[in-house]
Amino acid sequence: MGVKLGILGLGTVGTGTVQLLQDSTGRHPLLQEIEIYRVGVRSLDKPRAVELSTEVLTTDLESIVNDPAVDIVVEVMGGLEPARSLILKALSNGKHVVTANKAAIARFGAEIFTTANQAGVYVMLEAAVGGGIPVIQPLKQSLSVNRIHTVTGIINGTTNYILTRMQTEGSNFNDVLADAQRLGYAEADPTADIDGLDAADKIAILASLGFGGRINLQDVYTEGIRQVSKTDIAYAEKLGFVIKLLAIAKRDTPSSPLSVRVHPTLVPQAHPLASINGVYNAILVEGEPIGQVMFFGPGAGAGATASAVTSDILNLVAVLKTNTAVTNPLLTCGHQEYCQIAPMADLITRFYARFLTNDQPGVIGKLGTCFGNYGVSLESIVQTGFQGELAEIVVVTHDVPEGNFRQALAEIRNFSAIESIPSLLRVL
Amino acid sequence: MGVKLGILGLGTVGTGTVQLLQDSTGRHPLLQEIEIYRVGVRSLDKPRAVELSTEVLTTDLESIVNDPAVDIVVEVMGGLEPARSLILKALSNGKHVVTANKAAIARFGAEIFTTANQAGVYVMLEAAVGGGIPVIQPLKQSLSVNRIHTVTGIINGTTNYILTRMQTEGSNFNDVLADAQRLGYAEADPTADIDGLDAADKIAILASLGFGGRINLQDVYTEGIRQVSKTDIAYAEKLGFVIKLLAIAKRDTPSSPLSVRVHPTLVPQAHPLASINGVYNAILVEGEPIGQVMFFGPGAGAGATASAVTSDILNLVAVLKTNTAVTNPLLTCGHQEYCQIAPMADLITRFYARFLTNDQPGVIGKLGTCFGNYGVSLESIVQTGFQGELAEIVVVTHDVPEGNFRQALAEIRNFSAIESIPSLLRVL
Repeated sequence: MGVKLGILGLGTVGTGTVQLLQDSTGRHPLLQEIEIYRVGVRSLDKPRAVELSTEVLTTDLESIVNDPAVDIVVEVMGGLEPARSLILKALSNGKHVVTANKAAIARFGAEIFTTANQAGVYVMLEAAVGGGIPVIQPLKQSLSVNRIHTVTGIINGTTNYILTRMQTEGSNFNDVLADAQRLGYAEADPTADIDGLDAADKIAILASLGFGGRINLQDVYTEGIRQVSKTDIAYAEKLGFVIKLLAIAKRDTPSSPLSVRVHPTLVPQAHPLASINGVYNAILVEGEPIGQVMFFGPGAGAGATASAVTSDILNLVAVLKTNTAVTNPLLTCGHQEYCQIAPMADLITRFYARFLTNDQPGVIGKLGTCFGNYGVSLESIVQTGFQGELAEIVVVTHDVPEGNFRQALAEIRNFSAIESIPSLLRVL
Repeated sequence: MGVKLGILGLGTVGTGTVQLLQDSTGRHPLLQEIEIYRVGVRSLDKPRAVELSTEVLTTDLESIVNDPAVDIVVEVMGGLEPARSLILKALSNGKHVVTANKAAIARFGAEIFTTANQAGVYVMLEAAVGGGIPVIQPLKQSLSVNRIHTVTGIINGTTNYILTRMQTEGSNFNDVLADAQRLGYAEADPTADIDGLDAADKIAILASLGFGGRINLQDVYTEGIRQVSKTDIAYAEKLGFVIKLLAIAKRDTPSSPLSVRVHPTLVPQAHPLASINGVYNAILVEGEPIGQVMFFGPGAGAGATASAVTSDILNLVAVLKTNTAVTNPLLTCGHQEYCQIAPMADLITRFYARFLTNDQPGVIGKLGTCFGNYGVSLESIVQTGFQGELAEIVVVTHDVPEGNFRQALAEIRNFSAIESIPSLLRVL
């Protein structure tokens, strides 16, 4: 047996990875040279879906990252600590690391990659974004010959599942969320998914790779899907859109600041991302000269994630075969500067807004005039119906700086005819 | 300047590649270490879209592959000879090769990879399939941890453009082809595209990578789109399908023979490949445990193909940095056996067939009985309309061995009521 793995964690992803490695017939022959040497778990007594000898299992995770025999540490335990400390220790000890931990990479990437570079080893993270979809490797190794303009992703399966069901069933957010929790598509505490935090971690990683600089996670504007209503989904559909939680990183020229954000977005029905439904993920990369390429696949699940983890292991096994101490610059993290991030007020985008108004004559005229004063030009303005006594007006703008739109909105909010502005969404 | 390129050919792809390399701001910094050292062209006098000094340009292509200073040979001249001989010579001389030449790889792959392995160098071919879409690298380096079941592609932009226009405009094949030729989407001699030969080259390459064995190009069953009529496109639409030229490689278990084929196919409207339109390409890979992943993007064009060519160059430049003579087994071609290919008669598939019949009572019953005798069960059978005096009957079968279906069809062809069987297509 050639290469010795120390696996940290035997949850869903860890178990899937062990299952894949233990059943190697019909897969790449190099997998047969891998030995599952140590697996760190919380308890030795728990019943397991995989068979591992007692010498392999241990509760002493430190001992794995310190074991001189271990070549590659596979961190699939998740969470911030002790994952971070174990990764750093493994790297300092000269071990390559494979991780699926987007939260740790998005927060401690600078520290982790600096340590890896100093030790001359690699940190591989294909499973951190997009589940089984090979997107990290293409971004690092192929697409970087392009001048990347935009990376746009549907990269959270839970929210896409919920929005898809709200769309197809005309249901409310809370009802679908409760059902998704019952079915195991959403966690008991759904915050990380629903509020866009998981997608923010992932777009920070994709942006860093696509635009060649570090990203401060705090700089990622993040808005979740709690406020998306079935009413807005229905209006969006009538106007030719579907609502998706998009994670977007965008830079107009190589010298402009980067916009990095996660928010529910009206996507034109003909757009390639509009038809990505359910728990599927997709990442659309736009650059020069390539144009548009899109990667689509299962964004989560034991098998898909195990595929990504194992592909990283396979790549490291192949690299170890080349028997060199000199690192491949496409596999290391080369950038040390932070990307400059544009404030949201400078974002140029279209908006969708829904107003509830007292049914007075001239309301539409007043709205239009106020928008005009702030340079907001309207693509469509529709008085669509009534909610009880109140008239409902839906507006879609042309491209406008977000700051201007917000100023207009602040003024409109004070109009006596305006009862409330229940929805405000960006349009792709 | 670190790495010296010898580029063979300065047509569309060669020019695109030179333009990309000459304009490296905002791209991967490693590109700045590349020197365009020699470019081989047919004539020195031709006006060019790129500026290259007279020492760089030469008509002596042999001198490039024999020049000891050249590190990487980029073959973007196309055609079989002298491309094949120049590639072989470059490899024998210890140079890495990047090629976009699917025709040469599909025909001479065995010879080319054997030579490369003997010389300890790499042959990179990202641009050979799917234009700019990174699909070769994921298949070689990531997805091979899966037990691949199916690789299904829309990998010829010309035919997809023609079929998309026939679909949206209700036009005839010949009219759209003529217009596509006028617009530059189809060549003056469109045979390689229209008759499926280009797609056959490409699926042979994808199958070889996906299933880890060599493919005899003659074993790829190939049927083009000349016989696809607007009538069939319209019927397909009514039945919930679109017609696409699919290239399919499929293996049920790691020990079963492989089915490799190119033919027009009825694709269910909800299938991910159904919405790939115009000159776009997409490759869907299905495997265990990953499930379905799809790669989508521009299948041709100077910029997209230059992106793929340059990504291969970038990867080689990075590998050269690691300064080792030991090759990475994921970048070399490891397989030497030929895949066993299943005969088409053994293929299990659904069929769509259209019959023109004399309007006699009992024709549908006779068809159904005959199909039943050969174990062909029908999913739907519709008498759809009239073509002049003749009644038109459309049949969609359930899964059936192709051999059985053909036998039934041979018998049906002799029925006195059957005037002709103008269409016979497979259904995904």
